[in-house]
Amino acid sequence: MDEKKKYLSASGYSLRGSNYSINIPQDGIINPGYRGSSEFMLDEEEPKSTTEQIKEIPSKLKKKAQNAFRKKNIYKRIPIFNWLPKYSKEDAIGDVIAGITVGLTVIPQALAYAGIAHLPAAYGLYGSFLGCFIYIFLGSCKDVPMGPTAIQSLATKGSWQKAVILCFLTGCIELLMGIFGLGFLIDFVSGPVSSGFTSAVALIIFTSQVKDIFGIESSGGTFVQMWRSIAENMHAVRIGDTIMGLSCIVVLLLMREIPRKWKFHHLNFANGNKLFQLLPNIKIGPKNDDEKNAFHKIINKTLWLVGTARNAIIVVIGGAIAAYFYNKGNTDLLIMIGEIPAGLPSFQIPPFSIPAVVNETTGEIIEEGLNFMDLISELGSGLVVIPLIALLENIAICKAFANGKTVDATQELIAIGTANIANSFVQGYPGTGALSRGAVNNASGVRTPMGSLYTGILVILSLLFFTPYFFYIPKAGLAGIIIAAVIFMVEVRVVKPMWRSKKTDLIPGLAAFIACLVLPLEIGILVGIGLNILFILYHASRPKIHMEKAITPNKGIKYLLLTPDRCLIFPSVDYVRNLINKQGLRTQVPVVIDCTHIYGADFTAAKVVETLVKDFNTRRQPIIFFNLKPSVCGVFEGVSLDFKLYYDYEALELAIEELNIIGSQNSLHPQINRIATAESA
Amino acid sequence: MDEKKKYLSASGYSLRGSNYSINIPQDGIINPGYRGSSEFMLDEEEPKSTTEQIKEIPSKLKKKAQNAFRKKNIYKRIPIFNWLPKYSKEDAIGDVIAGITVGLTVIPQALAYAGIAHLPAAYGLYGSFLGCFIYIFLGSCKDVPMGPTAIQSLATKGSWQKAVILCFLTGCIELLMGIFGLGFLIDFVSGPVSSGFTSAVALIIFTSQVKDIFGIESSGGTFVQMWRSIAENMHAVRIGDTIMGLSCIVVLLLMREIPRKWKFHHLNFANGNKLFQLLPNIKIGPKNDDEKNAFHKIINKTLWLVGTARNAIIVVIGGAIAAYFYNKGNTDLLIMIGEIPAGLPSFQIPPFSIPAVVNETTGEIIEEGLNFMDLISELGSGLVVIPLIALLENIAICKAFANGKTVDATQELIAIGTANIANSFVQGYPGTGALSRGAVNNASGVRTPMGSLYTGILVILSLLFFTPYFFYIPKAGLAGIIIAAVIFMVEVRVVKPMWRSKKTDLIPGLAAFIACLVLPLEIGILVGIGLNILFILYHASRPKIHMEKAITPNKGIKYLLLTPDRCLIFPSVDYVRNLINKQGLRTQVPVVIDCTHIYGADFTAAKVVETLVKDFNTRRQPIIFFNLKPSVCGVFEGVSLDFKLYYDYEALELAIEELNIIGSQNSLHPQINRIATAESA
Repeated sequence: MDEKKKYLSASGYSLRGSNYSINIPQDGIINPGYRGSSEFMLDEEEPKSTTEQIKEIPSKLKKKAQNAFRKKNIYKRIPIFNWLPKYSKEDAIGDVIAGITVGLTVIPQALAYAGIAHLPAAYGLYGSFLGCFIYIFLGSCKDVPMGPTAIQSLATKGSWQKAVILCFLTGCIELLMGIFGLGFLIDFVSGPVSSGFTSAVALIIFTSQVKDIFGIESSGGTFVQMWRSIAENMHAVRIGDTIMGLSCIVVLLLMREIPRKWKFHHLNFANGNKLFQLLPNIKIGPKNDDEKNAFHKIINKTLWLVGTARNAIIVVIGGAIAAYFYNKGNTDLLIMIGEIPAGLPSFQIPPFSIPAVVNETTGEIIEEGLNFMDLISELGSGLVVIPLIALLENIAICKAFANGKTVDATQELIAIGTANIANSFVQGYPGTGALSRGAVNNASGVRTPMGSLYTGILVILSLLFFTPYFFYIPKAGLAGIIIAAVIFMVEVRVVKPMWRSKKTDLIPGLAAFIACLVLPLEIGILVGIGLNILFILYHASRPKIHMEKAITPNKGIKYLLLTPDRCLIFPSVDYVRNLINKQGLRTQVPVVIDCTHIYGADFTAAKVVETLVKDFNTRRQPIIFFNLKPSVCGVFEGVSLDFKLYYDYEALELAIEELNIIGSQNSLHPQINRIATAESA
Repeated sequence: MDEKKKYLSASGYSLRGSNYSINIPQDGIINPGYRGSSEFMLDEEEPKSTTEQIKEIPSKLKKKAQNAFRKKNIYKRIPIFNWLPKYSKEDAIGDVIAGITVGLTVIPQALAYAGIAHLPAAYGLYGSFLGCFIYIFLGSCKDVPMGPTAIQSLATKGSWQKAVILCFLTGCIELLMGIFGLGFLIDFVSGPVSSGFTSAVALIIFTSQVKDIFGIESSGGTFVQMWRSIAENMHAVRIGDTIMGLSCIVVLLLMREIPRKWKFHHLNFANGNKLFQLLPNIKIGPKNDDEKNAFHKIINKTLWLVGTARNAIIVVIGGAIAAYFYNKGNTDLLIMIGEIPAGLPSFQIPPFSIPAVVNETTGEIIEEGLNFMDLISELGSGLVVIPLIALLENIAICKAFANGKTVDATQELIAIGTANIANSFVQGYPGTGALSRGAVNNASGVRTPMGSLYTGILVILSLLFFTPYFFYIPKAGLAGIIIAAVIFMVEVRVVKPMWRSKKTDLIPGLAAFIACLVLPLEIGILVGIGLNILFILYHASRPKIHMEKAITPNKGIKYLLLTPDRCLIFPSVDYVRNLINKQGLRTQVPVVIDCTHIYGADFTAAKVVETLVKDFNTRRQPIIFFNLKPSVCGVFEGVSLDFKLYYDYEALELAIEELNIIGSQNSLHPQINRIATAESA
């Protein structure tokens, strides 16, 4: 143990909190690998005795309880306190513009997404205002527009009662996950799995909308069933809906390009002529912006607005066309979304049970009622998966616009959880921040979460005054809006960098994609995550060991230097023991285990190390540990004190020389050689 | 990229296969951490182009197929070829003695264990001979006695038909696991979980035998139910069985101590007197053995045999007592195992379906028949867990006596799988190597797997000739045998070293223990394993990052050196990104990421590193990578080429100095400082 202390002092081990120490190895002092590993930032505390630890529990709990009500923590958990006092006029202008733009996007989206969830269109709007207001207070990210999303709609199933109770339960689970700090769970959804899942969802949503484009009926739950049903019903294609649907898609895709690729530019030719021209939006730098006059700017802004509010424009135009034909008596040309109850939804407790449906004349039960437990068991694994996906979508927005600032997943869970609970009281179905609207929000120059206020107000106004006009909105048009949005969610573009970067990552991605297409959605994503976790586990269980044959400088004694490249935990230790034994038997020289990269170990590892040392002692072959991290050393010493450990190259090599002299005096056991020969044969 | 090459040559990167190179950092050359990490033994191959890799697939498959039929591989898969040609007279003597001793142990154990599985006693014997013979050919470990075990018996449920079909299916799954090389699965059962599971099983088996000790009836599946039922029936305790049962336990525990603690010694006193004395077996070294004469040796051997064959002795004496009273007309004093059909079981195909039980007079169906699929769904998760536990028990024996040699889990799976399939044709139920008999086998001096031959023959002889005598064996005696064996399986002794070594490892151990007691056994062990895997995942997702503030030697520019301690895979990268960003924002100096300990990365990591670099570039804060392993560098470069990388301290610090000059010319963005202030506030 003296060796350890010697190293600690010799290497100038700096204490925690020391400022700007120079840590370059000094000439002449050989100071390998182990630089400072005991100075880790996180949970590498000074070891305390057990009784001390137990004694500290009450005071720690008290501290935690006190902390929860500290000003700093309240500010962290109710973020509006941070930004509202500093709210400026510029902030207000930015938020009004962004909020209204997002409102123009969310209204057609909400009407359309309700269709994905097999709910009447109004329910989409019901979930698009109260949650927005809640998010203003609790949300930590200015760009998140709380409301229905394509993926959440797809995951929602059954009657409106089930959707509303699902919204309530989803909210509760999200809130609980937030309170218990389970936001880290999304870390276990890797990039490839997330891409595979999103792509599969996009294809499923696309498929579910094809029937509305052609105005046909279709059925089936899975991807394949839906396409089969579509193929069977293609004979009943309705010409009016098809034209409306396809032209909506084409127009939307073209309009989508306007704010991205085109801008109105002012060209100065060499001969003095001026030309206003719609040019591809190639960035020419800020200089040009200054040259533009108010007229150019207005045109450019209008173009941008047309592109951004394209969904609303399509709905208005499509509705106008449908209304024209309908009122001319051509009522069967287009399928429309039909009657939407005017006014706001009633504020009521979510339906914790669904009463049986009874035929009033005969008294027969048409549909069995469901109590609360029935509902929960019917929703099943969705209750785990939907909150997880909601968080995933939400955090994706936060990260996209965070500019490197930390995203607080816990706070986001609390915000969307509370928002969903609130929504369930106004008959909304589960929602979260939608990436498409988040991008609109950001591009419209939102400054604080206050933007959601104007979005919510716009939705309320539409429910109060515009529902009679919603009657005419053609379903094919809404389907077109969805299709034009989701086709860009199929992430083909990630395949190439993945292939270049790490090919094996394609496997979990592809598996998640296929599993989500052929299995129920929530099972599919769990399969993808599970497979990916298997990769980590395999990773953890098969460390690599670097082998080096070396000789001591003084007496030229050969020895083997083995360096495992990661920590020793139970899935890997037997494998490591076998490898070390095998190499030891083959070479018959002293073996040094360089533990520089071993940052952790567990009880199983300690037991196996004990066995390993015994194996070597039986063979009278020296085994020496080198540069073992003190915390890992403690784990090993809990099981056995019988191992040699050095922290200094010179001491190590002296020890090898001494040991080897003892070893050669005893001479190697004859039996050992036999084993060795048998092994290498 | 020049930097990389420079390092590669400057540091004397030795090629693979170089012999006995000295690899001590030379004085004056600063050569930190990165020693040789590209020279790993395993799967760290030279990078090949994709087309090359695809082209190689057919030839690789061909090679694999050829290898399977190579002599070396056949010898590996049928291990008898290795040892039979060298079989000597000494081997034969050792095997005969050990085989017969094990036989004397297995017969009473088999009769008793059948009771744990709720099967007639004969079925225990049916599973104790054919598998033994198979193991001689396929087994790789001389100490494994194939046959019923306490744990396997507990996991077996239902009628004899179900037990036999379970034996067949278990065997098939074991064989398939062996063929597909899934032996590594047991690596995921950690020491603590294994201890918790074994202890729970011991308590359950103990509980299941209490009723036979007292001669009462009891019912219930779980631990708690069984004890409640025993308490309710305690009024019906039978005096004869209780005396027999308790005295069997006491006698067995005393006999167990004989070969362990006592030996017959020959003492020479100083006055010339000699004294033969039964002394505690304190090892006095080989010298004393030489002094003993033949008489001492015989007595010592007898004592040892009495201790080892104690189960057989108890059965014989217990049976004799029972027979005495029974034939004196006192037929109700002791419950005996009763009629056992004489002779060997018939050799027949396992029952792939169970016909319905019909009342012959009324034609009513008493019990529904089960087809093959019904059987499989009824056996359910047991089909996964039983093979896993079988392998666990088996490998435990192999490891206990391997003396550091590699244990071939694949071969053991093939051996016990085939043995179980064979056993199912003679109405055996699932078995594996039993640790208790394995210890007897080893202590009796077994030399090769041939010992099993004599064990099997002894079982066959007992079935042919001794079944009439088995009638008298008292059930309380068998229960005593089981109890005296399993109480030592409760591993209380591992708690203390676990506590000393790594306290958190107690959690999965305790969880597995409790889960196995309160839940069905196979669910219980899965819960334990699952919890333990969660620990690994948490481990993988929360790396520690060492932080060091440093200054460059020439110009004294401050920078931050951050060293993550393990690989970057998806559950951890966002966490690492947040930490690095936070520290970067707080200090506002150049940040160097020392990647010495990063041995692997995936696509998600590469994406996050890309974002991290962008975050820093937006802030115009320099970020530099240091000492990145070439394979990890490849993963990063697949996504983005835009990062600075150095392999040399001097070059690194020069770069920092240059970057910082550029940085100070531009001056830090005013916006950055605002963010930084907001962050630190």
